[in-house]
Amino acid sequence: MTGLTELSVRDAATALAAGDITSRALAQAYLDRIAAIDGDVNAYITVTAETALAQADESDARAARLGPLDGVPIALKDNIDVAGVTTTNGMGPRNHPVPATDAPVVARLRAAGAVLLGKLNMHEGALGATTDNAHHGRAQNPWARGVTPGGSSGGSGAAVAARLCAAALGTDTMGSVRLPAAYCGVAGLKPTFGLVSTRGVAPLSWRLDHVGPLCRTVADLGLMLDAMAGHDPDSMESVAAPDAGGYAAEAPHNLTDVRVGVIANFDTVEISADVLHGFQAALARLESMGAREQRLTLPDYDPSLARRAGLLVSEAEAAVFHEPDLADHPAAFSDTFRSMLAYGRDVKGDRLVKAERTVQHAGFALRRAFDEVDVIAAPTTPQTAFPFDQPVPANQADLTAPANFAGCPAVSLPCGVSESGLPLGLQLIGPPFSERYLLGLAMAFEAACGYHLPPLPAAGF
Amino acid sequence: MTGLTELSVRDAATALAAGDITSRALAQAYLDRIAAIDGDVNAYITVTAETALAQADESDARAARLGPLDGVPIALKDNIDVAGVTTTNGMGPRNHPVPATDAPVVARLRAAGAVLLGKLNMHEGALGATTDNAHHGRAQNPWARGVTPGGSSGGSGAAVAARLCAAALGTDTMGSVRLPAAYCGVAGLKPTFGLVSTRGVAPLSWRLDHVGPLCRTVADLGLMLDAMAGHDPDSMESVAAPDAGGYAAEAPHNLTDVRVGVIANFDTVEISADVLHGFQAALARLESMGAREQRLTLPDYDPSLARRAGLLVSEAEAAVFHEPDLADHPAAFSDTFRSMLAYGRDVKGDRLVKAERTVQHAGFALRRAFDEVDVIAAPTTPQTAFPFDQPVPANQADLTAPANFAGCPAVSLPCGVSESGLPLGLQLIGPPFSERYLLGLAMAFEAACGYHLPPLPAAGF
Repeated sequence: MTGLTELSVRDAATALAAGDITSRALAQAYLDRIAAIDGDVNAYITVTAETALAQADESDARAARLGPLDGVPIALKDNIDVAGVTTTNGMGPRNHPVPATDAPVVARLRAAGAVLLGKLNMHEGALGATTDNAHHGRAQNPWARGVTPGGSSGGSGAAVAARLCAAALGTDTMGSVRLPAAYCGVAGLKPTFGLVSTRGVAPLSWRLDHVGPLCRTVADLGLMLDAMAGHDPDSMESVAAPDAGGYAAEAPHNLTDVRVGVIANFDTVEISADVLHGFQAALARLESMGAREQRLTLPDYDPSLARRAGLLVSEAEAAVFHEPDLADHPAAFSDTFRSMLAYGRDVKGDRLVKAERTVQHAGFALRRAFDEVDVIAAPTTPQTAFPFDQPVPANQADLTAPANFAGCPAVSLPCGVSESGLPLGLQLIGPPFSERYLLGLAMAFEAACGYHLPPLPAAGF
Repeated sequence: MTGLTELSVRDAATALAAGDITSRALAQAYLDRIAAIDGDVNAYITVTAETALAQADESDARAARLGPLDGVPIALKDNIDVAGVTTTNGMGPRNHPVPATDAPVVARLRAAGAVLLGKLNMHEGALGATTDNAHHGRAQNPWARGVTPGGSSGGSGAAVAARLCAAALGTDTMGSVRLPAAYCGVAGLKPTFGLVSTRGVAPLSWRLDHVGPLCRTVADLGLMLDAMAGHDPDSMESVAAPDAGGYAAEAPHNLTDVRVGVIANFDTVEISADVLHGFQAALARLESMGAREQRLTLPDYDPSLARRAGLLVSEAEAAVFHEPDLADHPAAFSDTFRSMLAYGRDVKGDRLVKAERTVQHAGFALRRAFDEVDVIAAPTTPQTAFPFDQPVPANQADLTAPANFAGCPAVSLPCGVSESGLPLGLQLIGPPFSERYLLGLAMAFEAACGYHLPPLPAAGF
């Protein structure tokens, strides 16, 4: 029953609730598909088939369902701790012991009945956006072999697009959930800073890291977020949200008179013609649905400068986290990764403070924009996914990083396909804690745009 | 009528409202006293007598009073901009032009009718706690000539204690309002981070700076705060408070069953016998009023280590702010100040990140303590005010800095006099935005302790 892996989380939940399918069958279908094609996609670093099937059986045996995720197979980026499974963080062997406990976000998903298929490939240490991984191999973009799925959550984007799981977790420091979502033609959400606990997740930058879901539909993002979100009193970064859940929009939001901001500062970013064309079409669609476009200039905000500042802050913070491994396990790091960390370690205090202020200012400027608009729209990435053998564009995160700096929720959803046959991503950004509203708007766009599953790669695609 | 300068803000307001006194007479009494003794105290850098009297006349001419501060003479630490008056920041001449506009906190006080007497002496650049100022001379402690009033808001503490103003503003990055309040036997409040705008105030550390009032009574702190507090949408550091004012407690809070936390980690700080004795007496008094003492250990918190981390963060941030002046006006800096800034400028990224994490963790640990207690009590300083010719204790801010790291409101109020005849300060710390509650508790203690004005220094004291 190959159709099982085509089901969205919501549809799978409906079928499971109705008794039309079992979690066992669903998990087995994903495991079969992983066995058949993941040798080519390379989305997984670790597949936990045995425990997944056991979890599926438990789900099937439960008298009452725990919620929409009960029995639904998902997978996790390999920088998120799962009890009893190695966390590679996309690196070689290092000090990190096999975790004895789940990261709180994993514990929440497990408590919601989700079935954990395994751990997903990623850019080394989450510091980069190609998932061209020196230790675990390249994750392939299911749309075209030899093309990056993006990163750093590249395995997450590839796995969701290739139907190797129903949903995946990624992490996003400057765009690492949304970039692979856009490149792989799926939906990805970076929630409000602190809404989802980052404890038990290998940090890149404590102040910019977020955990978020990647799914094949916007509705699924909300179902995942409802299970993932919750205050973690043991985490310095966790924030007590003003409301208690209910982030999943139940229906598309009416777009009439919604003020959609377009950031004029993004004109300085070199955006490819196909992405720009797709974005203009998306804006036209939003306007045809009743939204009103409004151009905004954020004061003293330069996207390239701010992204470079965010990178420096990330390198400096990551250097502190990786210090013991750099001393004890130098082979766990590629040369590139090691030199980026050394750069962050050695940067002078005044440069780091300036970078921090630039990051904070960019976030402040973005948050203030919501005095004038309800939501901000932008392309997710300045270009579509590119071949591994081409130079990596430096500006990949220019359009996604500001939402990290601001702590604002941001969703990327498919908005079409380029002339070269690669997916285009539309990014919608809302004010802090506006997830329900933001996902409602995204659902409306998704419905109007027409949802199309990515092409289904076969073995040897 | 020398008795005028003995009035608290609240009593002055009552007398002004009743028509028993005029603002002109009140301002003139303070100006006369400044003329008589500030040559000895050296609390003021700039006295704006003419505009003060004009403001007093305006107040007297108003048909209806603007509130309790209307016509009350106050003074400002000289790192806070007042339109038309040089801001020295306790330094020599530098790039800072004469401000064209008031800092928002000053604009609020002006709008409340306060009369501005002038600008107060401070530790150079607010980076230090003796107010032994190379450019503007030493501010003296009104309790004993040759003894520091503390700092960095040393002029503020000295002026309030010596009745050279009815109230003063200071700034507090690691204790710079509370230290001089304790050393000078007056009350000082560091509000919740972001509650009072720090825009138009020369920064030391953007993430740790607070503006707060120093007064002769706790009730006066609340009257000042009500005028000072308010969201500043143009400030990155301003926070929209969950309530809208009403920070002045109208009456002492009942202490029955109030859980008073005592931080066990402070046992590692070298605290002098007289301060410890005074603190034990204050705790006994709180218990006799019905409060319950509870010892708390904050996990992974070392007061000395955290204070040093906060100092490093401040030096690094200040180095960025002062960079242009260091290039253009090296003589504006003492050698000590310049070398501290150079240290912060040149510190390596990994050390700065570790210091930032230490600061954040200390703040997190302190905030979490309020899951268990209603308020935390501690001595304000590890020792009483010391002579200028003695070595400066390194640990002066060990007990005050945590409230800055946590963003929590903290008040220092007199709790007695040491055997050597110098004032002792009790510090009470509350959770964010608990000012009204905290000031109510402090008022109860103040009433039980018995309020005593500091001794009145005469010329040549």
